[in-house]
Amino acid sequence: MMRIIFLLSLLFALSNASVQDFCVANLKRAETPAGYPCIRPMHVKASDFVFSGLGTPGNTTNIISAAVTPGFVGQFPALNGLGLSTARLDLAPKGVIPMHTHPGASEVLFVLEGSITAGFVSSSANTVYVQTLKPGQVMVFPQGLLHFQINQGKAKAAAFVTFSSANPGLQILDFALFANNLPTDLVVGTTFLDPTTVKKLKGVLGGTG
Amino acid sequence: MMRIIFLLSLLFALSNASVQDFCVANLKRAETPAGYPCIRPMHVKASDFVFSGLGTPGNTTNIISAAVTPGFVGQFPALNGLGLSTARLDLAPKGVIPMHTHPGASEVLFVLEGSITAGFVSSSANTVYVQTLKPGQVMVFPQGLLHFQINQGKAKAAAFVTFSSANPGLQILDFALFANNLPTDLVVGTTFLDPTTVKKLKGVLGGTG
Amino acid sequence: MMRIIFLLSLLFALSNASVQDFCVANLKRAETPAGYPCIRPMHVKASDFVFSGLGTPGNTTNIISAAVTPGFVGQFPALNGLGLSTARLDLAPKGVIPMHTHPGASEVLFVLEGSITAGFVSSSANTVYVQTLKPGQVMVFPQGLLHFQINQGKAKAAAFVTFSSANPGLQILDFALFANNLPTDLVVGTTFLDPTTVKKLKGVLGGTG
Amino acid sequence: MMRIIFLLSLLFALSNASVQDFCVANLKRAETPAGYPCIRPMHVKASDFVFSGLGTPGNTTNIISAAVTPGFVGQFPALNGLGLSTARLDLAPKGVIPMHTHPGASEVLFVLEGSITAGFVSSSANTVYVQTLKPGQVMVFPQGLLHFQINQGKAKAAAFVTFSSANPGLQILDFALFANNLPTDLVVGTTFLDPTTVKKLKGVLGGTG
Amino acid sequence: MMRIIFLLSLLFALSNASVQDFCVANLKRAETPAGYPCIRPMHVKASDFVFSGLGTPGNTTNIISAAVTPGFVGQFPALNGLGLSTARLDLAPKGVIPMHTHPGASEVLFVLEGSITAGFVSSSANTVYVQTLKPGQVMVFPQGLLHFQINQGKAKAAAFVTFSSANPGLQILDFALFANNLPTDLVVGTTFLDPTTVKKLKGVLGGTG
Amino acid sequence: MMRIIFLLSLLFALSNASVQDFCVANLKRAETPAGYPCIRPMHVKASDFVFSGLGTPGNTTNIISAAVTPGFVGQFPALNGLGLSTARLDLAPKGVIPMHTHPGASEVLFVLEGSITAGFVSSSANTVYVQTLKPGQVMVFPQGLLHFQINQGKAKAAAFVTFSSANPGLQILDFALFANNLPTDLVVGTTFLDPTTVKKLKGVLGGTG
Repeated sequence: MMRIIFLLSLLFALSNASVQDFCVANLKRAETPAGYPCIRPMHVKASDFVFSGLGTPGNTTNIISAAVTPGFVGQFPALNGLGLSTARLDLAPKGVIPMHTHPGASEVLFVLEGSITAGFVSSSANTVYVQTLKPGQVMVFPQGLLHFQINQGKAKAAAFVTFSSANPGLQILDFALFANNLPTDLVVGTTFLDPTTVKKLKGVLGGTG
Repeated sequence: MMRIIFLLSLLFALSNASVQDFCVANLKRAETPAGYPCIRPMHVKASDFVFSGLGTPGNTTNIISAAVTPGFVGQFPALNGLGLSTARLDLAPKGVIPMHTHPGASEVLFVLEGSITAGFVSSSANTVYVQTLKPGQVMVFPQGLLHFQINQGKAKAAAFVTFSSANPGLQILDFALFANNLPTDLVVGTTFLDPTTVKKLKGVLGGTG
Repeated sequence: MMRIIFLLSLLFALSNASVQDFCVANLKRAETPAGYPCIRPMHVKASDFVFSGLGTPGNTTNIISAAVTPGFVGQFPALNGLGLSTARLDLAPKGVIPMHTHPGASEVLFVLEGSITAGFVSSSANTVYVQTLKPGQVMVFPQGLLHFQINQGKAKAAAFVTFSSANPGLQILDFALFANNLPTDLVVGTTFLDPTTVKKLKGVLGGTG
Repeated sequence: MMRIIFLLSLLFALSNASVQDFCVANLKRAETPAGYPCIRPMHVKASDFVFSGLGTPGNTTNIISAAVTPGFVGQFPALNGLGLSTARLDLAPKGVIPMHTHPGASEVLFVLEGSITAGFVSSSANTVYVQTLKPGQVMVFPQGLLHFQINQGKAKAAAFVTFSSANPGLQILDFALFANNLPTDLVVGTTFLDPTTVKKLKGVLGGTG
Repeated sequence: MMRIIFLLSLLFALSNASVQDFCVANLKRAETPAGYPCIRPMHVKASDFVFSGLGTPGNTTNIISAAVTPGFVGQFPALNGLGLSTARLDLAPKGVIPMHTHPGASEVLFVLEGSITAGFVSSSANTVYVQTLKPGQVMVFPQGLLHFQINQGKAKAAAFVTFSSANPGLQILDFALFANNLPTDLVVGTTFLDPTTVKKLKGVLGGTG
Repeated sequence: MMRIIFLLSLLFALSNASVQDFCVANLKRAETPAGYPCIRPMHVKASDFVFSGLGTPGNTTNIISAAVTPGFVGQFPALNGLGLSTARLDLAPKGVIPMHTHPGASEVLFVLEGSITAGFVSSSANTVYVQTLKPGQVMVFPQGLLHFQINQGKAKAAAFVTFSSANPGLQILDFALFANNLPTDLVVGTTFLDPTTVKKLKGVLGGTG
């Protein structure tokens, strides 16, 4: 009995150390460059460390026959400050995750089912690294480089991906060029695409200008 | 034609920028605190960015009825410097990945099949966070904390895990305490286990002292 | 006189630079992954940079005959954001700081008095590194690894320790396993200890389940 | 038309990813060790990413015949979290940016006009690295080391400088020693300057004590 | 005299501290994720800290009527490990630095002469941030985002730019898509450009496939 | 017996993970920006983690009646990559550690014996923070700022200090200004000291020019 009392006083002293083991994001508060402020540990539940949003395939009935389901800090607040985030890719046959970058993270992709042809382009010599992956294979995409995933098989494909940041960003090339109000002449001038092509893609993607 | 010539000269000028997009590890060279020296980009192949070691289940015919197959920088040199690594967990029914820590990384776990009961213990108040996960669910384990995975179901289970470091480390509690020559009296003195228990587990795990 | 005026105008211009030399923690505000928000520099006093809590020995009249007195950001707010924290260890004869980890920091220990036997276990090969230290000797414990300190001498011992983080965390193995409501069968299953041992230690340490 | 609808739903899904591409500082909120909280992206304008304060020479009619115009996070909030800041140096003939350090950043200096003699002192062997720079030349000053810039030419000189931190700090040696209330005996004792010199410079720079 | 002797012994003792104030790159040695190994301080000269390659305009007689002259660690080895690099942009009238990213760095641009219209696209909502800059104005481009610079004026323009990394990388969109052997069908499939456009641009930029 | 065999095979599999728990410096190899290459773990001994150089007072029979004994990575190679280093200060009565900075680290100081008056100057407003410390008190000095320690008591004083970097650097103001070949006119011009003072101190400290 005395032992317990001694121990509890020790425990109490140590708990004053107020350790930040984790920092579940309070998404209602303003972000900082290092992430969101934390909610108080006493309000954190075991289920906060679990994210269930990647268990079912995303809807691939769309123009790209594919879906990206993010599990970033915005969806999975427990990732805040831990340097990791997740997503699920689903690709129907002929589906494609178009050319894109993650401005703030490297990526590893684990193929869950089907076949995925994936590649990235290096910046120094514009070298192309393309591989066709089977279930269980892992591919790594270095930070910030243009890359893509495409399903050239006959069955649907899916992958689980993780990033080296709780908030990796996702810049899809076509959307960045054609789905906003960037004037056609600036797109033409900075990409060497012809105006007809630019205007056509702006039309498809909802861009103006 | 002239255009191409102009462009090639431009390309040449820019390629002098010698960009380090990636740094595939030269495992034969001595490590540094930031990772291994890089092999030259000209020797890097597309297949270097793919790791195939996680596609098949590890052998679970062992005392823990489980297997950890690492895809760290030592197995997957392209991870060097990118702040990510991978592994596969396989758990036969009643299989267990015993209490362990990753001294240098947080972890996300994606259940591939079966059911996995996983948990970790916080350091501030020794609070336990345990959840039973189904396929497609993701759980995050904050850096450095004791955690475990166990298969309480009747079917085999498997998971793909990633870490926030190319070399996360893996310290299995029982191995750290009982599978080396740490003298029994020091184990007893620092864990409050009784000598009989310590010696028994040293026997099972091959420890001495 | 004119010189002073010129200089003061210069000073004024430069002070607009609003430099963040330090960031004394406002402990009443929510933490972020990088630490606490700062109190305003005008409210910072010279005495905020001094911590007096480590000058007297901690109370070692307890089950471990030892005390850990933390000087982390929670006790010493000026450490916020500076990547350092402090603590004092006191060990009566036979006193022990049980097996523990600091999930987010490496540690250096400076022996103030007495003799301290300290050690840690590596994760790769479970190698044990144990040394007995005299006053003035320094030992370093790499981040996240299990380690301990024990007084095998006949006189009391004390040490000043510092960590490579303002909030290093402290996970004491026995407390993580036995001082909470982690079910006995999960402890047994993940440590290979027998239920009797687990229940006995839960009893001593106030755990349930 | 259907394509657009499909795409917009895709866009919507992806925008849930809530990416932190930038974090324009909300200077009214308390800083953290990683910088200021961000203002909401919807309130960020293109002009926030432009700073016009360095386009005109600073006033060099002062005791040092020079001016430092900062473009740090306090003046240019879009720099918050991006690891960069800027400043402009103007030096009339014989103008000098006195010995100073930036406690938290390295610096690159690009000469815009005139001639600037710049140097720094290493800490290991107190080696002096001095160079006289012409327009278009760049010099780098490693983090935290004492350095200076001086105009030994007959025309005015100017430079654009950038730092490896949004808030590099600026500690001017003479101001640190003589423009505050640090007691004369402490200045004398810690610099080996004689009291007369110290008091004289305190007089010039507005210091007391 | 005795004083000097005492001091020299002190100096000697302190110089044993072997401080790494800087780490001028040894470009002949293999890189690591943190940069190149350092050359020995005794071989470092003051002139190593100066880079003269940005003082004269680059050759803009090419297809883009523009030039990027890098001052990265490959050209300016003293930048190694200091978290900064530099470049010069020259744009003849109608010159353009095409859409590009820097995978590993944010950028600040200081206009030296002429008028530069610059912009970037955010990743979250594909928002466009475009501004036309005059000499002395500074614009910041957050890490990894697509951006461009264009000279819409009648006179030549130039800018000095710095990056938040010694090796920021430079991925020019058109080169990444069209100046390599990425198969036309993959470019088409991942960008939604039509094959004719892709093949035409491959022809101009020297790509195959 | 079979159990051991199963376990050993598991151990073997896991040891392939080649974890970098620590990276004891190989001082014979060239440094990198992140520190020295590691010696192989098999050559690391328990005693490598202990440094005995701070146990005895440094020689204070010199012009400053004080001694700084470093335990940086150069003296204590196990610190490499761990973000910490150590030193011992000894101050005879009237001894002084003159004004200095650590360009790459914050510092905590623990007083071992005697009384130490210590202070630093902030960069924003040149505010002075001075405190007189007794044994057991801790003071923190934020990174890169000018600071000093002085013994105004009648007994000798000593302190154990730690830094937030394995190689913090040490720039002593007087040595940087007067103990090298920085020309007197440059010292005068950048500090506003008079030539007589500069030449006198150059004489005392062994400087030329």
